[in-house]
Amino acid sequence: MLRALPCALIALLTGSVSAAEITTIPDAAVKQAIALRDQALKDGQAYALLESLTTEVGPRLAGGVNDEKARNWAIAQFKQLGFDKVWSEPVTFPKWVRRSESASLVAPFPQPLAVTALGYSPATPKGGVTAPIVMFNSLDALKAAKRDDVKGKIVFVSARMKPHRDGHDYGIGSPIRSRGPAIAAELGAAAYVLRSAGTDSHRLPHTGVTQWKEGGPRIPAAAVSNPDADLIEAALRRGSVQLKLQLDCGIEGDYTGANVIGEITGSEKPDEVVIMGGHLDSWDLGTGAIDDGAGVSIGMAAGALIGHLPQAPRRSIRVVAFANEEAGLYGGKAYAAAHKQEVSKHVLGSESDFGSDRIWRLSASVKPESLPAIDKMMQVLAPLGVERGMGAGNGGPDLSPIHAEGMAALSLTNDGTRYFDYHHTADDTLDKVDPEQLAQNVAVYVSWAYMAAQADGDFGSAPGAFKQNGDDD
Amino acid sequence: MLRALPCALIALLTGSVSAAEITTIPDAAVKQAIALRDQALKDGQAYALLESLTTEVGPRLAGGVNDEKARNWAIAQFKQLGFDKVWSEPVTFPKWVRRSESASLVAPFPQPLAVTALGYSPATPKGGVTAPIVMFNSLDALKAAKRDDVKGKIVFVSARMKPHRDGHDYGIGSPIRSRGPAIAAELGAAAYVLRSAGTDSHRLPHTGVTQWKEGGPRIPAAAVSNPDADLIEAALRRGSVQLKLQLDCGIEGDYTGANVIGEITGSEKPDEVVIMGGHLDSWDLGTGAIDDGAGVSIGMAAGALIGHLPQAPRRSIRVVAFANEEAGLYGGKAYAAAHKQEVSKHVLGSESDFGSDRIWRLSASVKPESLPAIDKMMQVLAPLGVERGMGAGNGGPDLSPIHAEGMAALSLTNDGTRYFDYHHTADDTLDKVDPEQLAQNVAVYVSWAYMAAQADGDFGSAPGAFKQNGDDD
Repeated sequence: MLRALPCALIALLTGSVSAAEITTIPDAAVKQAIALRDQALKDGQAYALLESLTTEVGPRLAGGVNDEKARNWAIAQFKQLGFDKVWSEPVTFPKWVRRSESASLVAPFPQPLAVTALGYSPATPKGGVTAPIVMFNSLDALKAAKRDDVKGKIVFVSARMKPHRDGHDYGIGSPIRSRGPAIAAELGAAAYVLRSAGTDSHRLPHTGVTQWKEGGPRIPAAAVSNPDADLIEAALRRGSVQLKLQLDCGIEGDYTGANVIGEITGSEKPDEVVIMGGHLDSWDLGTGAIDDGAGVSIGMAAGALIGHLPQAPRRSIRVVAFANEEAGLYGGKAYAAAHKQEVSKHVLGSESDFGSDRIWRLSASVKPESLPAIDKMMQVLAPLGVERGMGAGNGGPDLSPIHAEGMAALSLTNDGTRYFDYHHTADDTLDKVDPEQLAQNVAVYVSWAYMAAQADGDFGSAPGAFKQNGDDD
Repeated sequence: MLRALPCALIALLTGSVSAAEITTIPDAAVKQAIALRDQALKDGQAYALLESLTTEVGPRLAGGVNDEKARNWAIAQFKQLGFDKVWSEPVTFPKWVRRSESASLVAPFPQPLAVTALGYSPATPKGGVTAPIVMFNSLDALKAAKRDDVKGKIVFVSARMKPHRDGHDYGIGSPIRSRGPAIAAELGAAAYVLRSAGTDSHRLPHTGVTQWKEGGPRIPAAAVSNPDADLIEAALRRGSVQLKLQLDCGIEGDYTGANVIGEITGSEKPDEVVIMGGHLDSWDLGTGAIDDGAGVSIGMAAGALIGHLPQAPRRSIRVVAFANEEAGLYGGKAYAAAHKQEVSKHVLGSESDFGSDRIWRLSASVKPESLPAIDKMMQVLAPLGVERGMGAGNGGPDLSPIHAEGMAALSLTNDGTRYFDYHHTADDTLDKVDPEQLAQNVAVYVSWAYMAAQADGDFGSAPGAFKQNGDDD
C-alpha cells in the first residue's frame, strides 16, 4: 500500500494500475452528496442532539452514574432518527472513580490551588501527601533526573502548550500527563503534578488519563491549572516550596458498558459499511460537549440525513457511539476485536473527536487506486473550506484500532486553535460549540460518507492493509 | 459648584472668576510630570509589587487568614519604597467566612453546578435546601412577583452582562447580586441564585457582596457560572426543575483590620495631601490581582516615583491600601469618618479599582476655577491615550465617602472590556495583568498626582463641596 498522493499518481500515470481497478464516485452520487451537504449546513439536528445530551445526561465518566443513562439516550436517539438497526456491544474496563481532590501550597506561602486528579490515579494516603516540590520543564528532563533528587518529593512538570490550528502542542502536554506519573513513580516520587495540558489561562485544571506499567509503582497524580502553575513557579523562584495534595479516587473493579451502534441498512451491499461516530463517554468535570458529544451528534445527524433519503444508500451507514475512549480507547479496541474478521467489509471510516470547529483538512489512508474517488470527495468538500492533507489519516482515536487491522480511513481535522482551552476541563460545555461550525462538520461527514457508500469500487480495506501508516494529526 | 467644562469656560470667559482665583500648574511641574510619566512607562515596580502580593500573600478576604499578613506586607513595602510616614488606622466590620459550597440540579436531570456563596450570605440548613426553581429575567420582574409564586422556592435571576469599555453592564449585574437576595427573602423564597454578574463563559462563578435590610429576613444566596446558568435555563425549558444548594458560610462576629497608609511628606504644605491607592482586601476565590492588588501597586509605585525625586513635592502624597472594600466600603467609610475634619486639606484624590488595563478617560469633580489645571494635566495624559470625560468623577469606591464629604476627585476609567470576565472569580490572578498596561496606569497616576501636589491653588475641596455630584462610571 502506498501512503501519499504522488505515489498513487505515479502508479496511475505509468499505467501500472488498470482502469478497471480504479474506484470512482458515480456522478449521481456526487450530485446527491452536494444536496446533502447543503442541507446539512442549514440543519440544526446535530446541535439539538448535543443540547439534549449535555442537558439531559451531562457529564459521562465511563462507568459512572451517567454511563447507562447515556447509552439509553443514544439508543433512543438512534431509533427516533430512523436508524433501522440499533444495538449495543459490551465493553469492559477497570472503573475509575473521583471522589474529592484538593491541593495547596503549605510553605512558605500558604495558598489553595485549583487541582484535579488524573484518570487511574490512586488516592493519596489519608491526610494527603505533603512534600517539597521538585520541578522539571520537560519529560526528558524528568527522565534524566537522579533518583536522589526525586525520591520522596512531589514531581512538578511544567511545560506550556501554545494554541495551533492542528493542536500539535498536545504532543508535548499529552505525554507529560499520561506517561510522566509512571516515570516519576519509578524514581521514587511521592506524587506527581503537572501544569495542565491546556492552552487557556483559567483556574480550571485539565484532567486526562495516565498510563502505568503493569505491576510497576503507582503514585497519586494530578494537574493544576495554568495560573496555579505560574504561582508554583513564582514561589519556587524564591526557594523551596512544600505542596500538599489530597486525592480521594481510584479503581473500583471492572465495569461493563457498551458501544451503542445505529445503522442505516444498505440497499445493494448491506454487509459493507461506511463507519463514523464519536465517543459517548466524557471526562466528568464538564458536560462533554466538545469531547465528544459533538462527535456523537455529528455522526448521528449525518447518518440521519442519509437515512431520510427516499432511496437507501448502496452500502450501510454505521454510526458508533463508542464507550470509554478517555481511559484508553476501550470502546475502539473492543470494536476492533469484535469486528476484525469483517475488516474488508468496513469500506471507509472516520471518527470525529477533535471538537466541532471548522474542519479544514482531509487526510486519507486508502489504496492508491481509490484516490480518484477521494478527489471527487474533495470537489464536494473544498467549498466547505477543506484542504487535502498529504499525510495519512488513522480514522480518529476509536477507529484507529480497526484501521490498524486494515480498514481504510480518513482523518478530518478540525480547527483546534481553541480546543485545548476547554479539553478535559469543567469548561467543556455546550456554550463552547458554535452551531454554524458544527453544521459544517455534519456537511463534511454526510458528504464523504454518502459518496463512500455509493462508490464503484473500494478504498483498500483488507486485513493488515495499513500496517505501515502512522497518523499525521 | 459647576460640574462640567462648558460652565467653567463660561465663568472664565465672562470674567465672573478673577485670574487670581484660577488654579494653575507651574511649567516646571508640567515638565517634571512628563519626565515622571515617561519614567513610569519603563518602570516595572508596580508589576513587581503585584507579583509579590499575589505570590507571597494571595487571596485576601477581609478578616480572613491573610488580612493581617497583607497589612504587614503593605507596611513593609511602603517602608522599603521610601515612604517617610507609614501607619495604620483601624477598620471594624462583621467578619464573613466561607467554609464550603456546592449545588446541583437534582431533578429531572441530576448534574453538579459550579456555584459560589455571596458575601454575607447565611448558611443553608444542614443537608442543604432543595426546592423548585422559579426564574426571573430581571430585578424588576422579581420585584413584581407574587409571594405565592416565590414562597418556598429557589429564586433564580438570570440576566446576561455584555462586555463594554466602560463596563456599564455591571449596572445590571451588580444590583441583581447585591439587592436581589433581600427582595427574594421578603417574598418568602427559600434561597437565591443568580447567573453570575460577569461577561465570561467559564465555569468560575462570580462572588460579591449582598445587602440586607437591618432586621429583615435573610436567605442563602449564591451565584452559578454563566455556562451553569445556561444549563438551568435549558432544563427549565423542559419543565419544572429542582435545585439543591448547600452553603456553609456566615458571619463570625466583628473583626478589626486597618487601612494601611504611606506618605511622602510635602516640603511646603505637608498638611495638604494628594491621595491615591486601592483596596488591599480581595475576594477569596482568586489572588486579587486585578481587584485590587493592581490599585494598591499602582498607588505605591506612583508614590515611590515621586518620593525618589531629589526635591520633595510641595504637598504630601498619601497612598492608602484600604481595608475591606468588598463587603461594603468599610475602609473607605472609616477613612472618611476619621478625616472629614481635614477634608479641605485633601487637595485631590483618585483610587484605582477597575483593574489595570489602559486608562482611557479622566472625569473630574473639581471647582471650575481649577479646570485650567485639569487641562494642563490632560496635556500630559493625552499622549497616554486618556480622553477628557464630561461627567463628574467620584474618586473611586473607597474615596467616594470622603468625596461625599467634600474632597475634589478624579475618576480615571480603565478599559473594562475584559474586567468582568475575571472580577470576583478564581480567575482573578496575576496572568490577567498586562505589565505594559499596568505601567500606563502608573504613568497616569504619577502625572496627575505630582501636578496636583505642585499646583498653584486648589481644586475646590471643602466641607460639602460636591454634594450634588453623582458618578458617571
